[in-house]
Amino acid sequence: MSSPPYNALTLYTAGTPNGLKPALVLEELDLKYDVKPINIMNNDQKQDWFLAINPNGRIPALKDGDLRVFESGAIMLYLTDMYDRDKKFTYEYGTALYYEMMSWLMFQMGGIGPMQGQANHFRAFAPVYSAYGIKRYLDETKRLYGVLEIRLSKADWLAGDKYTVADMANYSWVRAGPPFLDIDIAEFPGVERWLKRIEERPAVQRARKVPDTGRSEEEMIKMVQGAKERVDSLKGTGKDEPSKI
Amino acid sequence: MSSPPYNALTLYTAGTPNGLKPALVLEELDLKYDVKPINIMNNDQKQDWFLAINPNGRIPALKDGDLRVFESGAIMLYLTDMYDRDKKFTYEYGTALYYEMMSWLMFQMGGIGPMQGQANHFRAFAPVYSAYGIKRYLDETKRLYGVLEIRLSKADWLAGDKYTVADMANYSWVRAGPPFLDIDIAEFPGVERWLKRIEERPAVQRARKVPDTGRSEEEMIKMVQGAKERVDSLKGTGKDEPSKI
Repeated sequence: MSSPPYNALTLYTAGTPNGLKPALVLEELDLKYDVKPINIMNNDQKQDWFLAINPNGRIPALKDGDLRVFESGAIMLYLTDMYDRDKKFTYEYGTALYYEMMSWLMFQMGGIGPMQGQANHFRAFAPVYSAYGIKRYLDETKRLYGVLEIRLSKADWLAGDKYTVADMANYSWVRAGPPFLDIDIAEFPGVERWLKRIEERPAVQRARKVPDTGRSEEEMIKMVQGAKERVDSLKGTGKDEPSKI
Repeated sequence: MSSPPYNALTLYTAGTPNGLKPALVLEELDLKYDVKPINIMNNDQKQDWFLAINPNGRIPALKDGDLRVFESGAIMLYLTDMYDRDKKFTYEYGTALYYEMMSWLMFQMGGIGPMQGQANHFRAFAPVYSAYGIKRYLDETKRLYGVLEIRLSKADWLAGDKYTVADMANYSWVRAGPPFLDIDIAEFPGVERWLKRIEERPAVQRARKVPDTGRSEEEMIKMVQGAKERVDSLKGTGKDEPSKI
């Protein structure tokens, strides 16, 4: 097999924080790629053809010719390694700044992503009202934003002096904190300035429309609000924890 | 600043699954390194000197001279990139197999690590008994082991035909599944064979003693059992969910 890249990119994605990450890289690099929207409500991502690409059955996934990459963090690294030859959004492999970027990327993958994801679950999607679950993950999400604030209160970007995949990965989740979790981002002024700096980028505006869900931001926020009200309505109905086992 | 490596390694760690990962790499590569045990019960990792190394206040962290790397996944990549010149436990940067390895490493960082960590929390460490939390994260942990099984039922290693950092990362958590969560690993026969294959390695045996906690495996398992019994004892005491808010 020849070595990548193969210049034949297909992105399998949906309108979620993890789904946004590869689109942010693809749009910044102005690459040609096909988008295959995955309907996660229909469990498209659990079908055999998709599991052959990502055995974990989660979006996003990427193919480049016959090569598959799964997990958003791996996809972002693949795209910059292969297609960002001028290192506009990454650092030269093996340099000190490359590992600073990698540390902040892993921080998102192992921390903000899964913990904020759990906060969203307990706040808006769980079949029970769990006061403990809601508080645990909201507190942890805010603690993690506080870690970003340590850096962003005194620097424009997470790693070195440019916008990299580490910023893109963390941005994808942090932007969803206020609508989903009612986090007041003004509590984290460095993070708030960084969010604005990122949202001004034309490539970010384009990426946020991949895939085209046909829904406006306002409609999405309204759906989230409805989901939270549903969870709230479970208080005191016997669908609080504990469910009887 | 000259480029890494600096051949002056210090590992800050504790006896946890994430803490084990860098030691697995360091021992396989037979590197010289200092170990600074971090007492996480005392919150050593929240002290200013440690936050300067890892602003997230979590173990493990690594220094190589003045360079810091945080998050276990980033540390493993740093060590193999810099010190595994023969690519015994990784693949050549930019090759297809390198991204297969990266996908499985990210799968651990974003999936098995945080989800099994939440299962451990609800099962053994939470201040409440949450039937929903216990079931949610145990089910997800087993689902993720099932994803490993898809690969390991037909191959010896996760990426390509050798033992890499992707196997080490996943191993660090999967080995803890049976004692913490009473997972019967025989339900995942490919995973079980892979675990045995890994545990036979002398470097793995050495890594499991870093840092030296002075506690045997049997004592650890007994402590875990006690922790689970404490959580069980909260059933029906008013410390079930919901806590009144």
